[in-house]
Amino acid sequence: MKKEVLIAHGSGGEASQTLIKALFLKYFKSSILKKLTDSAVFETDTSSLAFTTDSFVVDPIFFQGGDIGKLAVCGTVNDIAVSGAVPKYLSLSFILEEGFPIKDLEKVVRSIAKEAEKAEVEIVTGDTKVVDKGKCDKVFINTAGIGFFPKSVANMGKMVNIRPGDVVIINGSIADHGMAVLSSRQDFDIESDIQSDCACLNHLIQKVLSQIEGVKFMRDPTRGGLATVLVEIASSTNLGVEIDEKSIPMKEDVESLCELLGFDPLYIANEGKFVMVVDKSIAEKVIGILHNNKLGKDSSIIGKVTEKYNGKVVLNTAVGGKRIVDMLTGEQLPRIC
Amino acid sequence: MKKEVLIAHGSGGEASQTLIKALFLKYFKSSILKKLTDSAVFETDTSSLAFTTDSFVVDPIFFQGGDIGKLAVCGTVNDIAVSGAVPKYLSLSFILEEGFPIKDLEKVVRSIAKEAEKAEVEIVTGDTKVVDKGKCDKVFINTAGIGFFPKSVANMGKMVNIRPGDVVIINGSIADHGMAVLSSRQDFDIESDIQSDCACLNHLIQKVLSQIEGVKFMRDPTRGGLATVLVEIASSTNLGVEIDEKSIPMKEDVESLCELLGFDPLYIANEGKFVMVVDKSIAEKVIGILHNNKLGKDSSIIGKVTEKYNGKVVLNTAVGGKRIVDMLTGEQLPRIC
Repeated sequence: MKKEVLIAHGSGGEASQTLIKALFLKYFKSSILKKLTDSAVFETDTSSLAFTTDSFVVDPIFFQGGDIGKLAVCGTVNDIAVSGAVPKYLSLSFILEEGFPIKDLEKVVRSIAKEAEKAEVEIVTGDTKVVDKGKCDKVFINTAGIGFFPKSVANMGKMVNIRPGDVVIINGSIADHGMAVLSSRQDFDIESDIQSDCACLNHLIQKVLSQIEGVKFMRDPTRGGLATVLVEIASSTNLGVEIDEKSIPMKEDVESLCELLGFDPLYIANEGKFVMVVDKSIAEKVIGILHNNKLGKDSSIIGKVTEKYNGKVVLNTAVGGKRIVDMLTGEQLPRIC
Repeated sequence: MKKEVLIAHGSGGEASQTLIKALFLKYFKSSILKKLTDSAVFETDTSSLAFTTDSFVVDPIFFQGGDIGKLAVCGTVNDIAVSGAVPKYLSLSFILEEGFPIKDLEKVVRSIAKEAEKAEVEIVTGDTKVVDKGKCDKVFINTAGIGFFPKSVANMGKMVNIRPGDVVIINGSIADHGMAVLSSRQDFDIESDIQSDCACLNHLIQKVLSQIEGVKFMRDPTRGGLATVLVEIASSTNLGVEIDEKSIPMKEDVESLCELLGFDPLYIANEGKFVMVVDKSIAEKVIGILHNNKLGKDSSIIGKVTEKYNGKVVLNTAVGGKRIVDMLTGEQLPRIC
């Protein structure tokens, strides 16, 4: 195969076939994909489905703790998982810049295959387009995903069941992903070892859901960070959300870097976290399950839903004050996912 | 709303919400989408599913007979339809260039909504990313789609049933889309009225499948054109495909432009065509159904499957010769879809 992506790799002709057979089918072993039909065809035995999509344009494409390929799997798997469904099938679509090194593409493809295997999802259909040099930035990826609902949790994510007294949980430290990507940027001259938290959460979530009833809502705080999810909960329910800053897990180096650069970590993207709203009676049991898992060992109860503060999020600050947390206005760290 | 796409529109914060509410929800009326949950959730009553994806990077984004939005619906709808499934749900993902005019985005969104309504598919989930100016070209779109199989046709598209004597049908003229996009390019100084054939074929296909048994295979000849689909049929079955050049429908202006520019229309992309392989006994009946429909009025039997020419496609040329039709090598007309 050539050393660089050529326009011909997107032409649908011989070069496209070579790319598919020598690269994609080498790493993606799905028997459904292998048929190379226009659509992936499969059977399901449950009638409730979840369907989601995300495009990934992260810059740089390789960063500490992950890369655009791993991210493209985790992002879509997590969107399905927080809906309460079990993710099963992914589509994978590349937009490649002419001249992109094939060895980098292979690295990304290998990472996708590894993460998909770990998460037990199958890449079953795909597409590749190539655009002229300068018309995109290296590689953009889109994944869409299908998940299936075990019958008991098909009502997840509707927020209608959230009540005052419910407890808000996060499964670990915030702002790792955004700060890891930022510190991997070439034009960024501060050395740091911050690792992205990029991870597929479906197994951990299923562990909780299969053992406990009473989880009312989940969302992954990606773009817009923890604050955005909390604001959505408060504004959708017209209840208040009261959060204790001290109880929000954060790594020291992440906190320092945020402080240094003037970023509010509440708004920084995570890629391996979920926010969970649960009935107070099961909160400790949920934390117990989460603490037993690598991806949940730093889980914490960070606050509660309350009748006060209608539709608002209030943060009890570490120094003893109170602060309203609003929706993010303006831009913050573009191309973080 | 602002007049141009800003980085903040992709941030997940307030500007993203404005874009979603003021633009996307204005045109996309799905009750599933409206919930704005991480995944679209829906019920199905059939157990066989089709799932496909395509990214669209066509340049220019507005061309005679269509635009990138219409194309993004038709491309995915058709991929599902030629599998024999009934397309139902689409995801929609934008990658936008900072500075892209909101009015152009609205034009694209309106076109997507119109085409989706016509095809009776629902946009149920989506994503929007914004990249800095110069890091993509105006707008790239990804759609993924889910279709459901009526039980009788779940075996479509496996090519295993293709036999010598089977008949090859196309539902109209070839090469319209590719030549329309090409002649819409600014740097192209020949005036032409060629219109893209861009259209959703699901209703026409279902009309055939619901009335007749014996359709063995379908594929839409997009990138790589008619030739590529025929080569795939021949090489996958190890049978020959014999095609009569005179019977391939082509518009005069398309033929002239191809001749003028030295393009072989067999390799030029179509976006409203299917190639159908059917049992000889039903060929005339299929043609009868197709001729009664606007999207099939120029349908034609273009050739047959044969025991001769193992794995090869042979074209009986208009001047009485024979020519082997091969896979496209090299590039031809990039960014046509």
